[in-house]
Amino acid sequence: MRNEIMQHINIILVATTHPGNIGAAARAMKTMGVSKLKLIAPRCFPSAEATARATGADDILAAVEVYDSLAGAVEDCRLVFAASARNRRIAWPVCAPAEAARQVLEHAQQGTEVAIVFGRESSGLNNEELEHCNAMLQIPTNPGFSSLNLAAAVQIICYELCKIVAADQQPTTGKETATVTMEQMEMFYVHLRETLIDIGYLDPEKPRHLMRRLKRLFNRVQLDENEYNILRGMLAAAQGAEDRE
Amino acid sequence: MRNEIMQHINIILVATTHPGNIGAAARAMKTMGVSKLKLIAPRCFPSAEATARATGADDILAAVEVYDSLAGAVEDCRLVFAASARNRRIAWPVCAPAEAARQVLEHAQQGTEVAIVFGRESSGLNNEELEHCNAMLQIPTNPGFSSLNLAAAVQIICYELCKIVAADQQPTTGKETATVTMEQMEMFYVHLRETLIDIGYLDPEKPRHLMRRLKRLFNRVQLDENEYNILRGMLAAAQGAEDRE
Repeated sequence: MRNEIMQHINIILVATTHPGNIGAAARAMKTMGVSKLKLIAPRCFPSAEATARATGADDILAAVEVYDSLAGAVEDCRLVFAASARNRRIAWPVCAPAEAARQVLEHAQQGTEVAIVFGRESSGLNNEELEHCNAMLQIPTNPGFSSLNLAAAVQIICYELCKIVAADQQPTTGKETATVTMEQMEMFYVHLRETLIDIGYLDPEKPRHLMRRLKRLFNRVQLDENEYNILRGMLAAAQGAEDRE
Repeated sequence: MRNEIMQHINIILVATTHPGNIGAAARAMKTMGVSKLKLIAPRCFPSAEATARATGADDILAAVEVYDSLAGAVEDCRLVFAASARNRRIAWPVCAPAEAARQVLEHAQQGTEVAIVFGRESSGLNNEELEHCNAMLQIPTNPGFSSLNLAAAVQIICYELCKIVAADQQPTTGKETATVTMEQMEMFYVHLRETLIDIGYLDPEKPRHLMRRLKRLFNRVQLDENEYNILRGMLAAAQGAEDRE
């Protein structure tokens, strides 16, 4: 049962610089019963150093999936958290690790794919990557020294997951229908952008940060299938109104 | 205040084999605001490898106190936890990390010295050492792979301490601008309804539960002022497109 739930949880490391950190992250995952690891454009992988630091979690490294970009890796996910140890200028909904773990398990228990994304050692995730995430989780740290090692961050999050599973708590959902996939959200954003251009609200020459703000808004709300269909219908109607001009 | 409390918490590593683990433990401590490190008969310390892995937590290594035996290191402590990742045959009172952290902070807050003791990488603490401890704390792990790295165990325990201390401080909203009022939301819903009628998506004779669903969606997301203005602008643009028909 434990493994069945955990297998829907994807740990994603973006552009990791040090292969040792990939191995240490795999070990951290395995100690907590989490096994699915995806790598986005790692600088060096496979690597002897990664294998050495994995010490016993070789099975996780052997099953790693490597992607070119975050978009492809989260396509089938319905909830994507970005892990962060720092504050950002553009505000995002921020969860504590325990609350994020609760939400992640709530989805995983229903058999839907979920992901937790960890950025580069030096600079985290960029804004383009954040646009593929629903929310941010922030690990509380010493304000004067927040340089948490990548594997240590993975360890803490997987520990929070393990804690809930070990306590055998049954998180419940309140949703009527399933949350949509990030692939559906991508299609929604394409449609939204087209429509905003059609109705003259978005100037493709001067987009400002309009789409980024809207992505943040709609990623945050975690649309279910019904709501998604309503919004797509509204966009089509707005385009139709424009076409009738 | 935070530092005053944390300075009463002693992290004690017994007979550590790999100096890199000492450095990594120091870094783990510092990220969580814990600073007092004691070593019992380390195999190799000071060490260049420890310094390298500490990356920025050199102050903790510089202030390390080294002892011959655990007895001397816990002399002034009133509460001593032994950290363990495995079950022992001899029954001990066992706490979860969060509960242990709560008890540790409760004592530290009163200015009394407390300690959390971590055993050897290979074999943990021996029975003689356990006799200097009040209770055991056990980190939940994957039953099939509980080989938690020493620094990872230190990270998890210090994280549980930091979590409690951070929760006592003022949480920030993280929002760029204020969340809108419910009065504004009412105006938004009036505008949204008008627009949906204008573009032919909502039939006032057969409204189904469309507005109720949309209200649930947009109430959930807790719009800020910027987002609110963007959405109102989009509605106006959609109406304008319709008017030009």
